[in-house]
Amino acid sequence: MAVKQLGAATYQVSDVYVQGTGAVVGPKEGAGPLGQHFDRVWPDEGLTYSSYEKAEQAILWEAYDEALKKAQVSWEDIDVVLGGDLLDQIITTNFSGRQHSRPLAGLFSACATFTESLAMGAMLLAGGGPRIVMTSAASHHLTAERQFRFPVELGYQRTPTAAWTATAAGAVVLGINPTPIQIEALTFGRVVDIGGTDPNDMGSAMAPAAYDTIAQFLKDTGHTVQDFDAIYTGDLGHFGITMLRHYAEQHGLAFGDELNDCGRSLYDAATQDTHNGGSGPGCSASVFAGPLARHLMSGEMRRLLLVATGALFSPTTYQQGETIPCIAHAVALASRGEG
Amino acid sequence: MAVKQLGAATYQVSDVYVQGTGAVVGPKEGAGPLGQHFDRVWPDEGLTYSSYEKAEQAILWEAYDEALKKAQVSWEDIDVVLGGDLLDQIITTNFSGRQHSRPLAGLFSACATFTESLAMGAMLLAGGGPRIVMTSAASHHLTAERQFRFPVELGYQRTPTAAWTATAAGAVVLGINPTPIQIEALTFGRVVDIGGTDPNDMGSAMAPAAYDTIAQFLKDTGHTVQDFDAIYTGDLGHFGITMLRHYAEQHGLAFGDELNDCGRSLYDAATQDTHNGGSGPGCSASVFAGPLARHLMSGEMRRLLLVATGALFSPTTYQQGETIPCIAHAVALASRGEG
Repeated sequence: MAVKQLGAATYQVSDVYVQGTGAVVGPKEGAGPLGQHFDRVWPDEGLTYSSYEKAEQAILWEAYDEALKKAQVSWEDIDVVLGGDLLDQIITTNFSGRQHSRPLAGLFSACATFTESLAMGAMLLAGGGPRIVMTSAASHHLTAERQFRFPVELGYQRTPTAAWTATAAGAVVLGINPTPIQIEALTFGRVVDIGGTDPNDMGSAMAPAAYDTIAQFLKDTGHTVQDFDAIYTGDLGHFGITMLRHYAEQHGLAFGDELNDCGRSLYDAATQDTHNGGSGPGCSASVFAGPLARHLMSGEMRRLLLVATGALFSPTTYQQGETIPCIAHAVALASRGEG
Repeated sequence: MAVKQLGAATYQVSDVYVQGTGAVVGPKEGAGPLGQHFDRVWPDEGLTYSSYEKAEQAILWEAYDEALKKAQVSWEDIDVVLGGDLLDQIITTNFSGRQHSRPLAGLFSACATFTESLAMGAMLLAGGGPRIVMTSAASHHLTAERQFRFPVELGYQRTPTAAWTATAAGAVVLGINPTPIQIEALTFGRVVDIGGTDPNDMGSAMAPAAYDTIAQFLKDTGHTVQDFDAIYTGDLGHFGITMLRHYAEQHGLAFGDELNDCGRSLYDAATQDTHNGGSGPGCSASVFAGPLARHLMSGEMRRLLLVATGALFSPTTYQQGETIPCIAHAVALASRGEG
């Protein structure tokens, strides 16, 4: 095990492997193009729970459960849990700590939280500390809407650029036992704020942060985008990914077909009325822990750069007229699967 | 550099040193018993800023500034910033990222965030990744009151067990260059919830979490409480520290005079009308980065166990009748000062 700093913000890690993943989503996500690749699809948004906040905790718990099962470990084996979510005081992650009683370090990078947790987990493992860590992120459409916008019961109209916060959770057990999916390197992003102020157009606000982190990763590692068969941003969505292509081109970086986005992939734009696409920490977490991890496991996908993106504003800063600072953290994964 | 896992939740770290600390507080904190040990004391709560949220960002920024100055490094030298605060979406820490533009990993353990950041920083450094990290936590009385309770302008009456969220920030530059203050070990806490439901008595709710982490640290390291000349919990306050003594005694652990609490120490209970004492992530951060670091630097204090404590509830979970899950993270520091 070893960590090696590459350039300014990137770390190469040795001997860190995905032991097991769990991806559980709501009905809308299950009905989307990726639906078949999730471990479980809920029949509704969690109507049997006494609150949607409790439903969000439950969907995270189910993702944990699937990840543990596939990793063939139990909670007692987990040295530390690294995770977060979108709710104030990251209550979804923290309240789940009552159930698992494992050492817990809460993280928050908004919708970039999942790659922050993967990156931090990889750093700790490669640094020779813990041997098995649980990483995770979760979100729920109905808790996020009422926290950041309005309760959906109001029936307010959504703007064309608005994202659809996913009801989804992804959990990944990382460890040092060799498996077909290896974490090779990671980049901690920095805050980029180009002055966006519209919380209903976060894809555009986050695109420059995604570019900044990808460019930093490529500079630090010497890779090109062609070295990856897939580069997935987190939740730039339809508008944001277009912004990213333009923005990158202006800075001399041309993406090809390898560029995609978890949020854009999660729903069928033509039929699901999700406008810009999926968002929320659970979006990139579940798309990775479900479909992307399966493609890496099978060897069908050889090299993936996952770049979850986050808008770091709050309702308070929005009301105070602040712009939206954004961030993206990148994790590079390689498949050792049969292909 | 090396990390060694000791027992279930504790890690011994080599070659991690405090390079410099910055502690900046508000007027009430400056007028308290520790006032002379802070780097800067504000004359007011930040009335020149257009919002108290901006004031909170400013006080954190000043703490960063002092820590960099004492460490004799600049922002360009900082490999990664690890920090958090109490505000929704940890906006204080995240918005500061616009100014420093360094890689940033946001953390949240409520008022235990400061030792989470110290612990995470120590793990990353000892793991051989970054070489200099910035760790921090901050809070502001007036932003916290209106987020968690009521705007103070309402003039509501505080209960006797209520804590006083500190207007304070602490920042610590950690690195691998030997200095008089070394981080020796750390324990990531787990969530403990004994069923407390009163957000105005968080000291009592958090005491069992503090006990759990201290007991785990002692078990994992083989230390006794007598091995430390000081064990400082974060913000248990007057009620909570009494609870901790009783609770620990019931479990066979007897604390002596070494046990103290940052929140209890910050204000003069007899004259400052702060009831249970100080709280907020900035409380333990500033008490460590100010007075405790000075005592360690001089060698007057030889061994310190710092155990910041956090209540992981949110206004939403309180309104939904949930109990208050709590957590504490511990960091053990040793002085190599002349004494």
